[in-house]
Amino acid sequence: MPLGEFDLIAQYLAPLSAGLPGAFSLTDDAAALPVPPGQELVVTTDAFIAGIHFLDTDGPARIAQKLLRVNLSDLAAKGATPYAYQLVLGLPAAPDAAWLAAFTAGLAEDQARFGIRLSGGDTVRAPGGLMLSLTALGLVPQGGMIRRSAALAGDALFVTGSIGDAWLGLQAKLGRLTLPAAAAAFCDTRLHLPEPRLGFGLGMRGLARAAMDVSDGLLQDAGHMARQAGLVVEISAADIPLSAAALAAGQPLTDLLAGGDDYEILLAAPLEAEAALQSLARDNATQLTRIGRFLAAGEGGDGLRLLDAAGQPMLIGPRGYQHF
Amino acid sequence: MPLGEFDLIAQYLAPLSAGLPGAFSLTDDAAALPVPPGQELVVTTDAFIAGIHFLDTDGPARIAQKLLRVNLSDLAAKGATPYAYQLVLGLPAAPDAAWLAAFTAGLAEDQARFGIRLSGGDTVRAPGGLMLSLTALGLVPQGGMIRRSAALAGDALFVTGSIGDAWLGLQAKLGRLTLPAAAAAFCDTRLHLPEPRLGFGLGMRGLARAAMDVSDGLLQDAGHMARQAGLVVEISAADIPLSAAALAAGQPLTDLLAGGDDYEILLAAPLEAEAALQSLARDNATQLTRIGRFLAAGEGGDGLRLLDAAGQPMLIGPRGYQHF
Repeated sequence: MPLGEFDLIAQYLAPLSAGLPGAFSLTDDAAALPVPPGQELVVTTDAFIAGIHFLDTDGPARIAQKLLRVNLSDLAAKGATPYAYQLVLGLPAAPDAAWLAAFTAGLAEDQARFGIRLSGGDTVRAPGGLMLSLTALGLVPQGGMIRRSAALAGDALFVTGSIGDAWLGLQAKLGRLTLPAAAAAFCDTRLHLPEPRLGFGLGMRGLARAAMDVSDGLLQDAGHMARQAGLVVEISAADIPLSAAALAAGQPLTDLLAGGDDYEILLAAPLEAEAALQSLARDNATQLTRIGRFLAAGEGGDGLRLLDAAGQPMLIGPRGYQHF
Repeated sequence: MPLGEFDLIAQYLAPLSAGLPGAFSLTDDAAALPVPPGQELVVTTDAFIAGIHFLDTDGPARIAQKLLRVNLSDLAAKGATPYAYQLVLGLPAAPDAAWLAAFTAGLAEDQARFGIRLSGGDTVRAPGGLMLSLTALGLVPQGGMIRRSAALAGDALFVTGSIGDAWLGLQAKLGRLTLPAAAAAFCDTRLHLPEPRLGFGLGMRGLARAAMDVSDGLLQDAGHMARQAGLVVEISAADIPLSAAALAAGQPLTDLLAGGDDYEILLAAPLEAEAALQSLARDNATQLTRIGRFLAAGEGGDGLRLLDAAGQPMLIGPRGYQHF
């Protein structure tokens, strides 16, 4: 049964703001959000478009959870504590109660899991297809946000988790390759339900010099980190952490490295911080792998070198996802 | 000539963040925004979809400026000072340099005029048509946001500016009516370039008890204000401020009142505040008109009564815009 705009907000969205007094149960045009003394706001936005970022057949709960998690992954990589989020729901047709119930149940589950609440947003008609956008607000101590571009020459490059699983999950979903059942299930979960590394991210404040989350492909993202710091990053292909599923799949490593959607944290830190970072990773049940190092620029290349087991530069094709 | 995603950000969007150090020239995945001690954040989001909120033929600068201004209008109605905004650009095709130049020039002009800067966002491909979303951040003294639902019985209802011009502009644009040239130009500007009442909004802190901006039709919005306060609002039709263009157009008053897109401030205040509010309006070159009063509920109706010149209730049809 189709719902009106105000019923939709009152019945399905307002409950997601419970516990956040400044959201005024979504009855106002704006939220009022206090920021504790000594803290500052970290703000990040990701938009999700049907047919580009997800398929309508993914199901409402998984679409909602991935949208929230990719934004939480940005907060994690910045060392921020989740606070609140603004949600844009662009719906192609009159909202369907069952669809909305599943969509908001997915959000409610992840809100409780990751500690964030809905502060507001907008609900509009979008005849061109479902389109979603989320702006996540987090908190860090003043000046404490971990920057993307702050790596120094000599820093090591680390990455959490494993790389390429989501790309394999996407290839399998699109029918381009077949994975054994267990690997298919694992990669499908990695594609649709990335795990924002919030505990690790919080703990790495003071240890990591620079960080970002891997969303558009490890090679492209690591290249950004290096170039924005005026450096070159050298990555050892043999050290890239691959899951058992990815190892068994036997796909070209450069595809895994350019595939994107990993939502792992890529970080630069001095070697002296490695033991503390490894201990932090264990405490958060996250794998952490040293995969490269940053060098002064001028040693050639355009910010990025991928080395084979013999230390020789490998050819790199497309590095990652670009929208245009 | 089509542009890549990163060129688009560096060439067209990053300049809009100049002067906001925590935007890091849009080279990071998040912005870090300090909030001054004693202040809190006001957050509001509006999305704009091609064919619903604007036509592609409106032109990029006017689309951009209206998107920014409708969000600024929300900040104004909450008594907030503009701070920063996150922008989602969903582009149906590879971005065209001329289109982007005009779009961002429109934003730059209004940023300078209204004192707000771009802190970040997301740029994605949106095959279903241009879709935009903006989350605006403002600042108020802690606890100082003017709420929508805080009117008290006995308060008077005021509105800035004039009502119905944007609706007339839309009807003319759609070819449903013909206006004299000067009126057509006036109403077209009112439709595409609403004037956020920021100076008035700031000044009404401490004078207004409740406020919101009129975006979906005065009747619907005033009804929300009353119902959310557990009150009834009685509006005197003869007191509604109409522009010379609207008076001459001779359209039914209830259409003007339900049309929406006015982006004027609707506020509740005790009668004792009227002189100070009128003085504030003059200082800000804004008209302010008392159009009604709030009464205790239980006196009948569903939150709203529209009275004719004889004090008799008028029939009300559709009260305003609903997306579904």
